[in-house]
Parts: sequence; C-alpha cells; structure tokens
Amino acid sequence: MSDEKKLTTRAADFSAWYNDLVLRAELADYSPVRGCMVIRPDGYGIWERMQRALDDMFKATGHRNAYFPLFIPQSYLQREAQHVEGFAPETAVVTHGGGKLLEEPLVVRPTSETIIYAMFAKWVQSYRDLPLLINQWANVVRWEMRTRLFLRTLEFLWQEGHTAHATHDEAEAEARQMLGVYRQFMESWMAMPVVTGRKTDAERFAGALRTYSCEAMMQDNKALQAGTSHNLGQNFAKVFDLKFQTESGGTDFAWNTSWGASTRLIGGLVMTHGDDNGLRVPPKLAPTEAVVVPIWRTDEEKSRVLGAAHALRTELTGRVRVHIDARDTMKPGAKYYEWELRGVPVRIELGPRDLDKSQAVLVRRDTRVKQPVALDHLAADLEALLITIQDEMLTAARKRREEHSVRGAITYDAFRQLMEGEGAFVYAGWCGDAACEAAIKDDTKATIRVLPDEEFRSPEAPRTCLKCGRPSTSEAVWAKAY
Amino acid sequence: MSDEKKLTTRAADFSAWYNDLVLRAELADYSPVRGCMVIRPDGYGIWERMQRALDDMFKATGHRNAYFPLFIPQSYLQREAQHVEGFAPETAVVTHGGGKLLEEPLVVRPTSETIIYAMFAKWVQSYRDLPLLINQWANVVRWEMRTRLFLRTLEFLWQEGHTAHATHDEAEAEARQMLGVYRQFMESWMAMPVVTGRKTDAERFAGALRTYSCEAMMQDNKALQAGTSHNLGQNFAKVFDLKFQTESGGTDFAWNTSWGASTRLIGGLVMTHGDDNGLRVPPKLAPTEAVVVPIWRTDEEKSRVLGAAHALRTELTGRVRVHIDARDTMKPGAKYYEWELRGVPVRIELGPRDLDKSQAVLVRRDTRVKQPVALDHLAADLEALLITIQDEMLTAARKRREEHSVRGAITYDAFRQLMEGEGAFVYAGWCGDAACEAAIKDDTKATIRVLPDEEFRSPEAPRTCLKCGRPSTSEAVWAKAY
Repeated sequence: MSDEKKLTTRAADFSAWYNDLVLRAELADYSPVRGCMVIRPDGYGIWERMQRALDDMFKATGHRNAYFPLFIPQSYLQREAQHVEGFAPETAVVTHGGGKLLEEPLVVRPTSETIIYAMFAKWVQSYRDLPLLINQWANVVRWEMRTRLFLRTLEFLWQEGHTAHATHDEAEAEARQMLGVYRQFMESWMAMPVVTGRKTDAERFAGALRTYSCEAMMQDNKALQAGTSHNLGQNFAKVFDLKFQTESGGTDFAWNTSWGASTRLIGGLVMTHGDDNGLRVPPKLAPTEAVVVPIWRTDEEKSRVLGAAHALRTELTGRVRVHIDARDTMKPGAKYYEWELRGVPVRIELGPRDLDKSQAVLVRRDTRVKQPVALDHLAADLEALLITIQDEMLTAARKRREEHSVRGAITYDAFRQLMEGEGAFVYAGWCGDAACEAAIKDDTKATIRVLPDEEFRSPEAPRTCLKCGRPSTSEAVWAKAY
Repeated sequence: MSDEKKLTTRAADFSAWYNDLVLRAELADYSPVRGCMVIRPDGYGIWERMQRALDDMFKATGHRNAYFPLFIPQSYLQREAQHVEGFAPETAVVTHGGGKLLEEPLVVRPTSETIIYAMFAKWVQSYRDLPLLINQWANVVRWEMRTRLFLRTLEFLWQEGHTAHATHDEAEAEARQMLGVYRQFMESWMAMPVVTGRKTDAERFAGALRTYSCEAMMQDNKALQAGTSHNLGQNFAKVFDLKFQTESGGTDFAWNTSWGASTRLIGGLVMTHGDDNGLRVPPKLAPTEAVVVPIWRTDEEKSRVLGAAHALRTELTGRVRVHIDARDTMKPGAKYYEWELRGVPVRIELGPRDLDKSQAVLVRRDTRVKQPVALDHLAADLEALLITIQDEMLTAARKRREEHSVRGAITYDAFRQLMEGEGAFVYAGWCGDAACEAAIKDDTKATIRVLPDEEFRSPEAPRTCLKCGRPSTSEAVWAKAY
C-alpha cells in the first residue's frame, strides 16, 4: 500500500486500472472462494454510509425493515414460470444439512420475491393491511461464471424492497417513487448522474410487468445498471395466493413491487470518480472527509504541529469527519500519495511555517487545487469546500456523460464503429421489435439500457429505427454495459 | 392481533407464553423453511437499535466493520481439529452451483474464524499491522434439530468480532474488554443483568483457549448464554499461517480473539421483561418510546385532541420517539391492549377532559402506574420518566435474579430437587473434575454456566464440590440453560 508504485492508467487498460485501484485502495480483496470477495474496512465504510443514507430515505417514504430466510425451498422458486427461468440456472443449492441429505433441496436466495410474498399472503387479509411496505438488507447469491470485484460476484450485499398494494396504479406509483429515491441517492450522495427509464421486455426482471432502471455512465463509456425497480403486477400474488378483501367486499390479488440496489454501487463510484492517482470519494459518502497531514522535522516542531492538529480536530468534531495522520514512520509525501489513492476529499497540510502564518493548506482531491486558509475560519471554509466538491463532482460527471452521449441521426455503421471503439450512450430510434434489439446485441454487444424517461429524451424524437429503418416507436438509449 | 384473546400466562406454561408473545406482538413468524424464522418489522426494529448501540461501542473501542464470504471451503473448516469437531456436524452444505456439482463442497458459514484468519494471513506482515480489529455483521447457519424463535434457529443474525494481536496478554485483554462491552450493553441498554465469567473446558468454544460468557437469568430461572468472547490463542494462526515479523526481528504467530452476540438477544429481552400482558421493551431499545392514544367521541373532540397530539409530537421531535395512534377503527381500550402487548414503554392518554385541565395521563408499561402530567412540562417529565423506567427495569430484573440465586452450602439432593423444580442459579463448589460436571449434567440437565468473575463470587468461597465432596477448586454457577 505505502509503496509508491503507480496505478495502471485508465487509458492504458481501464479494466486493469479498476482492479488495481480496488485492491490497492483496500476497498476489497479476493477470497479463497471462487467469485466471492472480501469487502475490506475502507470499502465497507463507504457501504455503511450508503446504507445509512438509503435506509433513511426508505424510512422517510414509509418503509420498514424486516428479515427473511436465506434459504428458499426449490419448489417456491419454481412456481413463477418466468422467475424460475431467469434465476434457476444461477443458483447455489444446499443439498445436505446436519450431515443428512435433505428431502427438498434449498436454494440460497438469488432474490427473495418467492419467500417474501409467501409470508405476505399470511399477513394480508384486508385492504386495511395495505399497502405493506417492507425492505430487507441481505446477502444474495447468484452463480456467475465471470466475476469482477463489486460489479459481479457470486455473493453480494444489497437491499431489496418488497411491497403490496391494493391497485395497479398504487404499485406503479411506488415503483416510480423508488426509482426516484435511487436517482436522488445516486446523484446527491454518490455524485453519479443517471439516466432513468423503462427496460424493454428482453431486459425486464424475470417475473415483472415492468422494470425501471437507473443507468450510469462509467469512464470507459459503458453503462452500469445501478438500481432497478419493478412493478410485478399480480404475477407473484397469484402464485402465492396473496389475496385481500377489497373495500367493496370482494377479493382481489395484491399488486407487488420490488426494488434493489447493491454493493455494485461501490464499483460504480470507483468507475465514475476514480482517476489515475486513485479513488475520489464524494464527501457525503466519505468515512473520512478530511485528513490532516502534519509536517515536522524536529521534535519541537512535531509537538507544536500535532498540538495544532488536535485543536483543529476538536473544533471540527460533529461538523467534519477528520483523521490526523500522525504516523512517524512515513514522510508527508508518502502520506499524500496514500490519501490520494484512498480518495479522501480534502487534505489539510499543516507545518511550522503554516502555523507561523496562522494558516493551513487545503488540497482538494477532486481537482488537486491547493488553497491556504486562515486557521480562525478553517472550519467554516472546509465545510463550504466539501459542499462545493460534492456539487462539482456531480457537475463534472454529468458533463463527461453528455460529452459521450450521441443524439440525432446516426447510421448503423457509425453506431457500430462507436460501440467497437470508445463507446457512448447513443440515443436512437427503435421500432419496438425485439428482433432488431437482439440483432444489434449480437452484432455489437450493445443493449437498450432504457427507453428513457421524458426529461432525458431528445428534443426531436428520432423518426426511424437504428437497425431496420422502419418508423421508430420509442427513443432508446443504447450502450455496452457491465 | 387486535383480538383481545389473553396470552398464555407465564405460570401456566412459560414456553407457550414465549411463543405466543413473540408471534402476537409480531416480533417474528415461522417461515416455510424448517427452523428458519422471519423477523418482522417490530422485532427487526429492536434489532436495529441493538445493532446501532453495539456498533457504536465496537467503533469506540477501535474496531472497524468488514464483510467476508458466506461460503467456506469444506477443507478450511477441517483444518482446526477441535473447530471441525464442534461445527461440522451442524453445517448446511452447498454441493451444486450454476447447475453443476462443485469440485469442493462449500459450507454455509456457522462462524467465520477459518475464512477470516485465512484473509488476516494475507494482510498481516509485521507487528506494525497489529492489532487488527475487525467486526462483521452477518447471517450464519447452524443445522439445529430443535429450534425456537430467536433462541435457536437454523439461520440467525449476529455480529462476530475477530482480532489479531502480537501477544497473548493483548489478546486476553481484548477478550476481556469485549466481554465488558457486552455486559455494559446488556445491562445499560437491555436492562438485562448478567453474570460474567469463564466457561469450563467442556463448554468452551471449539478451537478456543478460553471462553468468557455473559449469562442472564430468564423468568423461568433458566440461564441464557447472551454473548461470548474467546481468547483463541495461536490455534487458528498456526493452522492458517498467520505470522508476523516481531519488533525484535523474529517471527511469531498472531494471537486471535473472537466474540459474538446474536438475534438471540431479542429472545432474552422477551424472557427477561415480558409479562402476562405482553412485551416490555426498555426505553433505550424501543423503536417507539411513547404512544399517544387520543380519546374522542365527537368529530369536534377528535380534531381538538388530534391537534393537541400533533403539537405534542412536534415538541417531542428529536427528544422522544413518539407515535400517534389515530386509527378510528378501534376504541381506546383496544389500543391500550395492543400497545401493552407490543411493549411500548409509555402510553400517553389524551382526551377532551385532559385538555380542559391542560394535562395528559402517562401510563408506564413496566409498572402500569398512571400519572397525570401538565402539558406544559410533559416533554421534560416524559424524558425523566423514560430514564426512570430504564433504571427500574434493570433493578427489578437484578432483584428477581438474586431472589432466585442460591449461595452457600447445599446438598446434592436439594440441588437436584431445585433443578427439577423451579430452577435457580446455584453458586456451589466444584472440584475441577470434568467427570463431576458431566455427571451433574446427565443427572439434572444443569451445566456450569460460568466460573464467575470475582465480583459475582460468594463472600465465602465454597469448600467442597457439589457432587463429590472433594475440595472445591473454584466456585461455579450451575443452572439449566437455553
């Protein structure tokens, strides 16, 4: 960690840069179990802040947390036809327990619709019991063949919201609301702008009526599906007999939604904000917002500088999360290097000459701009700077995305070249035919990320399908994706 | 839930009372997976508050959270001889993934020593990397045959701390420190007094040098092992090659500790504080500390009373967690019944006649004592009352425990009768021979819960072994246990 070997650059090999950064910034490590990662304290600290922020937003919208079993009877997964088709091939299966072969194998949950709606059916009798608004923080397992730290692992941590409603429209409103919650979190906490919209039938969640997604552009111009929200219709309710007595005295099946976001978001954070010097963490998610690097040569200087550093920390308590790097086994330059790698938003350099001038030097991690600040208003200046950094990181990421978004008429050949080359979000027409969608995917590996929500659509709607030239029925955002 | 069927009483059938309460207060429910429970929002809300309090204490003592894989290669579990003997018989085993038979079966973690110390071995090179102080919040699976909601389930939620140190003494100090953290949490948050001490070799954690435990007395006078802390010595370090370069330039194996507490604590809370009317939650752990039950007959009264209730809630924001039960489908009496069942510490009755007198009536859940309080100092009175309740619940539980603790000379016959009858914590002499320990267990089902720490020992040390009459080498606390 402390050796100053340079990271692979993004330009040289984006994928190698990513792995290098994740390992050397100690966000995660490989484990002895194929495809399973260890989330190290620096990575987990970011996840804890993500969890807290999302959890507060879920609670503010009326949801409560609960916990459902890790194991799902195999027969439950099989009840919803599309669901089993989507998930059964990638499950881990427990066949033995307590030294004996089980009568029925248990699947390690890949997602919990089946077990949760089976429980909802026990709890819901009347329209008065609706809406039922539940969230679970849990680990899930999907047997992926090719894995990447944070982005795709056999086991990952996530939250899955599950709700039941009396009407289609209420479920639809919930699915849209939670998409909005995700977007707000990603933009205002992660400083990661997203395009929202609906998935095509081919990309829909297995068992859903409609799937909505937040899609973010990484620095290699590929899309990351960062959070999805599903209107499940009555599909699961019918299978698990989740019925209720309506206000007018009849009975009906409930309408469900589910929505999830995972530790994949940490990968998204890295690929949105990381640079060739390491990670850049947006201040609101940074376990440490500012690190004080004291500079000294003599013992006398050391005690003077550390004294000032501790006074500063005391002043900042409850306002800014500060760490003092007082290690005397490392030079300041090595410390700068390390904290840049780890992505702490602001470095505070504090040496004897600074103290002589009653100042410290603040160095922004995002822009690396330095500015001297008088000690007597450092706290206020630092707070303001952190807000500025948070805002400007979002602005910069949005600008970058727009520079790599292509709108307006594009030939299929030009599109194909773009996808083979530097990549982009391409806004183009689509005839609505799954055959065109599949052909483009075969050809270029690009997929329709979303049929974008109104605010993301081009001022002039595309007229023809990117592939077949027939009239377009909806604008689509095409990109290669993680 | 809202039907006013009485709970089974504790006196009639303690075990049925417990299940009845857990289900009817909606703390948990049975799931379709044998031995796995669903933790419902009211139960999970208590767990979230427990987590937050413990997590803060872990962080205050220098620990950081991380996350390790759910799956452990079967060969890892087998490396430490005692460990595998203790845990292998109760594991769930994944034999198939992605539709294929695995080359090596994966065990669903029953505890994570093996996988965690394998990772520590990668991370620790030098004494400068020590101590390494890690905690994980996770689910674990132990294939139990006889299960009880919260107390013993196939899957449960817990935290497991894992640390590595340079010396035996540091590891020992850590194990003792964390035992103290548990005790402090159990007493000052759960209002559940515990006896601390060391486990005998027969009751020690599989693979540990020494195990320490917090033992609480439930209302049926049985013991609940509520949290344990282990000095693992160098057992795991040797097996996983967790070595470090010492300050003097040699190499040595690290010294490990592990310590855990689980959702079993919720069962402990119920069995410590519940009564025949339902749950009693100590204020510090109550998601809702006070519930306002507004009383009205006319629409005019309703709007007046609800107006006052909302004003009260606004005043209490940030001070007391308050819920207003404004349902108009239930009478006040039914609401009282429901909130008593759910264990909310204080009920605030607020009706037109109270408003005429500028007062409300506070009703304590623990003692059911009522007191009118002037609205203009209700907030301060309520805050003080909640502190009083928290304190008095601990005092009452400690008093109860002492009334059912037996010290001083006791014949073996009297002991056996006591264990067959109402039960107790019996402080008696022990010769130190595992044969006596085993014979008593066979005979009475009672076990040595701990060799108690000094402050719990009797003023006069027992002279002879309870069973064999030989000289006692240590005082032991005997009880039947969950």
